[in-house]
Amino acid sequence: MIKERLLKDIEFIVELDKMKSILRQTSLINEDRREDDAQHSWHISVMAMILGEYSNEKIDVCKVIKMLLTHDLVEIFAGDTFCYDKVGNEDKKERENLAAEKIFGMLEEDKGRELRVLWDEFEDGKTSEALFAASMDRLQPMLSNYYNNGGTWKKFNVAKEDIYKRIAPVKKSSDELWGFVENMIEDAYDKGLISK
Amino acid sequence: MIKERLLKDIEFIVELDKMKSILRQTSLINEDRREDDAQHSWHISVMAMILGEYSNEKIDVCKVIKMLLTHDLVEIFAGDTFCYDKVGNEDKKERENLAAEKIFGMLEEDKGRELRVLWDEFEDGKTSEALFAASMDRLQPMLSNYYNNGGTWKKFNVAKEDIYKRIAPVKKSSDELWGFVENMIEDAYDKGLISK
Repeated sequence: MIKERLLKDIEFIVELDKMKSILRQTSLINEDRREDDAQHSWHISVMAMILGEYSNEKIDVCKVIKMLLTHDLVEIFAGDTFCYDKVGNEDKKERENLAAEKIFGMLEEDKGRELRVLWDEFEDGKTSEALFAASMDRLQPMLSNYYNNGGTWKKFNVAKEDIYKRIAPVKKSSDELWGFVENMIEDAYDKGLISK
Repeated sequence: MIKERLLKDIEFIVELDKMKSILRQTSLINEDRREDDAQHSWHISVMAMILGEYSNEKIDVCKVIKMLLTHDLVEIFAGDTFCYDKVGNEDKKERENLAAEKIFGMLEEDKGRELRVLWDEFEDGKTSEALFAASMDRLQPMLSNYYNNGGTWKKFNVAKEDIYKRIAPVKKSSDELWGFVENMIEDAYDKGLISK
């Protein structure tokens, strides 16, 4: 007899396979192919392992990783919203809240709640862990753009001040990473990868 | 002045992007597209979060996740070896050891060593964490095959006894998951998804 709890877990795990087909705007480095949510979530989780030591505050890296592994699951029902898409971002919160109820509601109540609490903390962006997680989430596509001859910065003619707004969590969470980020953005600007 | 240590980290992180282009034999569920190492590594890391409670022994789930996030990095230099490919598996260990030196050697010594120790533990497969990690690594493609009308089991005419050998870590690490796995394999066999 297989328990209902485990069957729900398996159904949830099978549902997660869809993350591999949700495309983001960012392209893979040196490839003419957009990355998906699963690839992105993996990359930023490893980044947290590697870069965690640069956080100004002492952080629980394990919690950061769990946040990053699951922060985009809502997109299975809400889709990906491009960060510089001002219209799409107007109702993003509402669409994602409904999606969170749906996706985390697939699990037994205690388990779903645990993931929901983690997602809420990430979305609120107030704790040191949430800030560091957001830093990884923002830094990774910027690295791709930098190494992709401007990538979505160039494609969507994104202004330097909007890029600085987007990457702000890094400024709050790590002096050392901020030094690197400022350097990268200014270098990209000087090279014409950021146009205005 | 950006420190050498951080520059090495960034170079490593950029190199990891290649994981998104290393194809495995397994296909995405309901899609005619093979999955890649980044997608696979993400999926099994979330699986460890969800299924960790079923381990017979008390395990450090965080350690399991870190193992799973990084266990396939050697494939950046060694490529993916299909688990049922007997010839390819003959020199796999040697190829992957060389690859491990190369990929982990990109980082500062202490950091590279930390990842190497984790990878060695996974490869040795002796600790409770390594066993549970292997269980996730083996279970995920089996779920895909089961929901993909046989997938690589059918395509490569894999024998039931080879499937049982491959999934053996689950038997050692979780009675509850083993109950599910046996049920799934026997059901797949009855439905003709496993042919011999």
